[in-house]
Amino acid sequence: MAKFSFDDPLFAQFAFYSGVVLMKTILMSVWTSRHRIGSNTYASPEDCKFFGDKDLKPKYDNQNVERVRRCHLNDLENVVPFVLIGVFYVMSNPNPAYALLHFRIFAGARLFHTIAYLTPLPQPSRALAFGAGFLVNVSMAASVIMAGKY
Amino acid sequence: MAKFSFDDPLFAQFAFYSGVVLMKTILMSVWTSRHRIGSNTYASPEDCKFFGDKDLKPKYDNQNVERVRRCHLNDLENVVPFVLIGVFYVMSNPNPAYALLHFRIFAGARLFHTIAYLTPLPQPSRALAFGAGFLVNVSMAASVIMAGKY
Amino acid sequence: MAKFSFDDPLFAQFAFYSGVVLMKTILMSVWTSRHRIGSNTYASPEDCKFFGDKDLKPKYDNQNVERVRRCHLNDLENVVPFVLIGVFYVMSNPNPAYALLHFRIFAGARLFHTIAYLTPLPQPSRALAFGAGFLVNVSMAASVIMAGKY
Repeated sequence: MAKFSFDDPLFAQFAFYSGVVLMKTILMSVWTSRHRIGSNTYASPEDCKFFGDKDLKPKYDNQNVERVRRCHLNDLENVVPFVLIGVFYVMSNPNPAYALLHFRIFAGARLFHTIAYLTPLPQPSRALAFGAGFLVNVSMAASVIMAGKY
Repeated sequence: MAKFSFDDPLFAQFAFYSGVVLMKTILMSVWTSRHRIGSNTYASPEDCKFFGDKDLKPKYDNQNVERVRRCHLNDLENVVPFVLIGVFYVMSNPNPAYALLHFRIFAGARLFHTIAYLTPLPQPSRALAFGAGFLVNVSMAASVIMAGKY
Repeated sequence: MAKFSFDDPLFAQFAFYSGVVLMKTILMSVWTSRHRIGSNTYASPEDCKFFGDKDLKPKYDNQNVERVRRCHLNDLENVVPFVLIGVFYVMSNPNPAYALLHFRIFAGARLFHTIAYLTPLPQPSRALAFGAGFLVNVSMAASVIMAGKY
């Protein structure tokens, strides 16, 4: 039986890949800040006052800042569901090799998605990376719904 | 004692309803893409270049695209906390019938919320659906805080 | 061994602090609604029709509404990863006193972050609150990745 414990190899693998993609997600905040400071683009007057020159006004349309913010939101839309669905998925006694493949494809796809978004690489590279991660989530969610059916 | 396992009926029910609302949430991405492609509305220049006509510029104000994005963000604000709070809630030995009622009201309310948002149905239909899901979250969070009090 | 159960003191403490920061996060919706209604600022035509005066048009630039929305999104970017990473972290047999310190610093920092954002307090108060919560998340994520390494 599946166990929610690091003694279970599948749980440990899931924890590892979840840690990697969550770490990547939270680091997006640093990247946003770097672009905000580098371009003097702040959303709140108190930020303009402290970080910017005198009389700086809030701005919301810097393309580099907005690109990182879109990438970050896309992580919230995909990485967070991956971890949430995965918690149930690892408990549903999936084939371990098949489950590990899910985690590896997802982590690889999302790391590449970030590179493709921030470089930016020509499409459809980002769309394919998004699609791979998305299909992993759909596959795991379908397994969870079937396992939970009562 | 509550168990974090599909052997526990309450866990299996929670997994099922979590899978349903998370599946619905991730499918919003498909709906956004459909509206973006249908209206030639892209946020990044590389998307315009690949998916759009020559010389297409990024646009951020298509009302159909923005409506789906608001609905998706509302899911992140409500569905994600539901699953997170619920993981602790199912471990706090709630009355099983009462807990199941929470899950069913939440799932029903959020499915209806999406229909009300995307149709759109006249208010206050969406506000009531939001409110029902919100109250489930507040009720479960209060139970978790009480159970965790030490 | 760590147990995913309220019988485990560390789990109960983590559940308590997770419940507090998640409750705070979901309450942001109420605060947004209050500002929307108070300033007659709605994002959808059906909301304007029901809640507003005749002929009211959607608006997206009310500074009080946008400030609460930025604070809410910042919670999604930080509180949600905290709970997700923490679920694995409590299972990785951390030093209990050190783990509890992580939870307390995070909860305190995020409550203060909200006060600093909504008042607003002069910077760098909000930046420091953000930074404290961020470092807790990075520290826990690093522990999870190390524990999951196989």
